Amino acid sequence: MNTEIYDVVVIGGGVAGTAAAMYCARFNLKTLGFATLPGGLITTTHLVENYPGIKQISGPNMGRVFLEHALETGAKYDFSTVNSIELMSDSSFKIKAGSKEVIAKTVIYATGTEHKHLGVPGEEAFKNKGVSYCALCDAAFFKEKTVAVVGGGDTAAIDANILAQHCKKVYVFVRKGKMRAEPTNVNRIEKDPKIEIKYFTEIQEICGEDNMTHVILKDGTQMDLDGVFIAIGWNTNSQLASDLGVKLNSRNEVIISRESETNIPGFFACGDVTDAKFKQAIIGAGEGVYASVMAYEYIQKLDE
Amino acid sequence: MNTEIYDVVVIGGGVAGTAAAMYCARFNLKTLGFATLPGGLITTTHLVENYPGIKQISGPNMGRVFLEHALETGAKYDFSTVNSIELMSDSSFKIKAGSKEVIAKTVIYATGTEHKHLGVPGEEAFKNKGVSYCALCDAAFFKEKTVAVVGGGDTAAIDANILAQHCKKVYVFVRKGKMRAEPTNVNRIEKDPKIEIKYFTEIQEICGEDNMTHVILKDGTQMDLDGVFIAIGWNTNSQLASDLGVKLNSRNEVIISRESETNIPGFFACGDVTDAKFKQAIIGAGEGVYASVMAYEYIQKLDE
Repeated sequence: MNTEIYDVVVIGGGVAGTAAAMYCARFNLKTLGFATLPGGLITTTHLVENYPGIKQISGPNMGRVFLEHALETGAKYDFSTVNSIELMSDSSFKIKAGSKEVIAKTVIYATGTEHKHLGVPGEEAFKNKGVSYCALCDAAFFKEKTVAVVGGGDTAAIDANILAQHCKKVYVFVRKGKMRAEPTNVNRIEKDPKIEIKYFTEIQEICGEDNMTHVILKDGTQMDLDGVFIAIGWNTNSQLASDLGVKLNSRNEVIISRESETNIPGFFACGDVTDAKFKQAIIGAGEGVYASVMAYEYIQKLDE
Repeated sequence: MNTEIYDVVVIGGGVAGTAAAMYCARFNLKTLGFATLPGGLITTTHLVENYPGIKQISGPNMGRVFLEHALETGAKYDFSTVNSIELMSDSSFKIKAGSKEVIAKTVIYATGTEHKHLGVPGEEAFKNKGVSYCALCDAAFFKEKTVAVVGGGDTAAIDANILAQHCKKVYVFVRKGKMRAEPTNVNRIEKDPKIEIKYFTEIQEICGEDNMTHVILKDGTQMDLDGVFIAIGWNTNSQLASDLGVKLNSRNEVIISRESETNIPGFFACGDVTDAKFKQAIIGAGEGVYASVMAYEYIQKLDE
């Protein structure tokens, strides 16, 4: 088998990965991206209004534009799933994806996250029709509405707080009798008259017609709600990096420097898979650009 | 005088400042921006093709869209120049701009930079018509062309290297008999057959018709060139921050954390004025968003 050698292999076809691939192509680096979900997680969002410079775009369109931007600038993309990354004795990386095997001088790892789901009936059907996994992204669409946040951790507390800036009423559904969030975050929502914490409360079903209109709780109660924000955490797609020896934090996020470096030279990371304090498209794109410029500089030094 | 109180005052109306203002408005923070140059430095660029998600846009249009994005999301902008920022005893900030005086709970400082100019005839006339101040932005427009980089420092060396990825021939005009750049960067360009360093060389005039076509050097020689990249540094607009006690690095850039914090609580910075390794629109926008979320969190804590 004739193994192709690339300057950069980008793993991930979302906002961060395609931003990195586009910049790499501008540096005339030989760039191959792998994308399991072309366009990335943003394609599962209904409407994006908070990417600076794009006033309004649908999630699917945004994913498409980013991918096209990378392709039209000269990066190649392959839509198979990467199975393994191996560090070679000469510090290059061997990447296997499906039946494909390539060598990369540098890797930009941008595999993102998956939101954890409740797994209740109606959750999938009303996604983007009331059901959201990102308060920071979607709160502004729920002005003067009544919503519930599901979760007992910090994300749930912070989300409730963000939602209370816009909504008429925000419930927080906590499965247990106590929130796990930082006391300061709990105090803050306890003091907000718009927010009401409901302990020992779990959703059994999300119901509606075009959009969701109400939920049925496990105790049989029905509650009218315009939206449900599910904030029970996410799974970070960091396994392949971890297998390689890349350092993760306690949330299984890849630890990067401000310039998107990991602990392994030539291996960069960007986007939702990293330990950035906020998982936002614009932050991932910025990290992607840092990764590409650092990859470029790294390759320049290799060639000396 | 009735002094208005804002949650956030953003100083700067470029990409970073408007990104911050837009996000602040999404958080329902009372936000006022000041912009001396609406749209910022990007408005002086001919064409932008490397902002992820916007395949191609003119510089002036890009500046306009970013400003509109902030305004339409609910931020206000005032187009007077800020004269002073004062830290008050209650940790708020008093900002004076023209005849206006406002109080801000937080400040997001995004005043950007100004490129240093050569100050020779033709430089202004052929700006964006061959004359550029950003190789990273514009190199791809000079495929197979002959260009010169002006400067003897690291930026000039790095720019020459970037340009050599695209151009047929790259001259480096160095005023003195030696480059001040890092030896590794000098070695790299010395080894590149496309790059030729010309010492004791200064431009006297930049000439052309629609676009620049040649330069006249101080020794009277005429040289045909498609482009001139001026890389003699920039002036960072950090004086007001410095006056306040904000820490700068040796390049007079505001030192920020990965989350856009400065050494003064409640005072954040983003964009080209910061110590980011690369001055790119997308990186400034990401920093702006960090600044806005951090400002939001800071204000939440103030209100407790």
